[in-house]
Amino acid sequence: MRHYRLALLGFGNVGRALSKLLLYKKEELLQRYRLTFSITGIATKRHGMAIDSRGLDLNRALAASDLTSISRLPIPRDTHEFIRRCGANVLFENTPVNYETGQPAIDNLILGLEAGMNVITANKGPVVHAYHQLSELAETRGRKFYFESTVMDGAPIFSLFRETLPGSNLLSFRGILNSTTNMILTRMEQGESFEDAVAYSQKIGIAETDPSGDIDGWDAAIKVSALVTVLMGIPLKPGEVVRNGIRDIGPEQISRAKSEGKRWKLVCAARKTASGIEARVSPELVGPDSPMFGVEGTTSIVQFETDVLGLLSVIEVDPGPQTTAYGLLSDFLNLVTK
Amino acid sequence: MRHYRLALLGFGNVGRALSKLLLYKKEELLQRYRLTFSITGIATKRHGMAIDSRGLDLNRALAASDLTSISRLPIPRDTHEFIRRCGANVLFENTPVNYETGQPAIDNLILGLEAGMNVITANKGPVVHAYHQLSELAETRGRKFYFESTVMDGAPIFSLFRETLPGSNLLSFRGILNSTTNMILTRMEQGESFEDAVAYSQKIGIAETDPSGDIDGWDAAIKVSALVTVLMGIPLKPGEVVRNGIRDIGPEQISRAKSEGKRWKLVCAARKTASGIEARVSPELVGPDSPMFGVEGTTSIVQFETDVLGLLSVIEVDPGPQTTAYGLLSDFLNLVTK
Repeated sequence: MRHYRLALLGFGNVGRALSKLLLYKKEELLQRYRLTFSITGIATKRHGMAIDSRGLDLNRALAASDLTSISRLPIPRDTHEFIRRCGANVLFENTPVNYETGQPAIDNLILGLEAGMNVITANKGPVVHAYHQLSELAETRGRKFYFESTVMDGAPIFSLFRETLPGSNLLSFRGILNSTTNMILTRMEQGESFEDAVAYSQKIGIAETDPSGDIDGWDAAIKVSALVTVLMGIPLKPGEVVRNGIRDIGPEQISRAKSEGKRWKLVCAARKTASGIEARVSPELVGPDSPMFGVEGTTSIVQFETDVLGLLSVIEVDPGPQTTAYGLLSDFLNLVTK
Repeated sequence: MRHYRLALLGFGNVGRALSKLLLYKKEELLQRYRLTFSITGIATKRHGMAIDSRGLDLNRALAASDLTSISRLPIPRDTHEFIRRCGANVLFENTPVNYETGQPAIDNLILGLEAGMNVITANKGPVVHAYHQLSELAETRGRKFYFESTVMDGAPIFSLFRETLPGSNLLSFRGILNSTTNMILTRMEQGESFEDAVAYSQKIGIAETDPSGDIDGWDAAIKVSALVTVLMGIPLKPGEVVRNGIRDIGPEQISRAKSEGKRWKLVCAARKTASGIEARVSPELVGPDSPMFGVEGTTSIVQFETDVLGLLSVIEVDPGPQTTAYGLLSDFLNLVTK
């Protein structure tokens, strides 16, 4: 029987979904993995922090409007003090992404590793801006830096290569990795205007108030950058990805494609070349012979070309905070069971 | 640096493809995994056997018409003596499948485990007829029994759940797992008769001389049985899978489906129910909204429903002996690196 102390940095949709998943899986983790856990700390930006070395009551944390009320120990002044004092074995870093710098998540993860914790994040920023630094630090400290949820939520992508495709080399990939633009294109095919499709995506919570990060291909470019950096082993910044968004795809383009039996998709693609990497995000017409053709709404797909298999595709239908939370849980279980 | 002694039982298309892959990856295995290997034995039914504790020359083995000529040690009388004397750490069991009993592969694997070897097979027979027995024996002996290549060749299916989806429970799956019937249906859509499509599948080497194992759904039922047995943890024999082949799908059915924008596919499906398992293989009409719609020819797909993710699909395009060989290599690397 092993006991793990967990700390949650960030307690928004994903952190709360993880908490509920941990509660739901508690008995199963005990039975299948002989594993128990306690949450020794939760930190938020606007709803306080709580630390309890004997373990916080997750149900009370989920119900509390301010976490300060359930803390048994003095409240840390800031995030860094929280990390140093939370006393956990595993830190879940789920602060909002910063596309330009990856901060403050990178510093949080460094501090967590230096404090002897394994660190897990759903935040793409640290992966594209500090993957090698964080991996090396983790290696040096005998700890893990995992981030399965950063691309395609809970679907195994990074762990697919790390755990199931040993001895393979990734040569290229293509896919649909941004759900907002895919939802917008899907709704436009059904006759909705671009503006209404954007508004719908905002209403269901997948697009931001400022949707340009999705529409102009930034989110997709960051995911391309993360996949190239980690799976191809070649650092590539989001700005190095040739990037075209979907603003030029109007109703005429949509209906002309339809009449040809095709569909516009915002395709992410990268391939190794003799001189390095060619990576791009751009709208492409795809036909029914492509596995991307049937990928609608928030569903995502990636197709990998390796030196050992034919094309291998992974499709995840309708992800959400629960599936992101599962990606975090799978990282946790992967690092403690291997 | 670790050294592994490997033995190959069966040296047909798959065994030979594995040998070529091992030669191709030799330097990479050394660099990435600090791992060397030698082949201490190869046994065939009709082309002799060879044993050499110092390692056989794989290139000579691939070129030899009778392996006896390259053996340094006395030739074993039979397969069982070969297993006892080959002196390997890892046994690759690639004898032909026996759908009814799983023999003689099961006995070969038992003997291998009892001799202290890890055992790997591409043979579905032992998985559906002796999974629990072989897994328990392996566990008792501190060894592994792996079989990634038995369903969807080299694509990670068993290792996907074992290595990347910890804490998940498989509730149901659907897929296209028999390439011969999928090729026949694809050719019939292009106007070919059933008989010509069968002949074509035989010509390219995917259908047997007696193609009834594919056409009547036996091969698909065995794969359903393997997935249920291993991934759902419930032993299910192929005969317990409700089974309908593709003999009733004639040109009229094909063209009526086409006019409705649909396609006939031989669908494998199983789901957990309150009372056990419902499992079947049967032709189904699928529309373009299904990820199965675009799966043509020898390509295969499986879509998993778990309690933690949305639907997760894996598609493998155009497998062959090389990809089956990679499944064996990935089993080997998984068992020595974890």
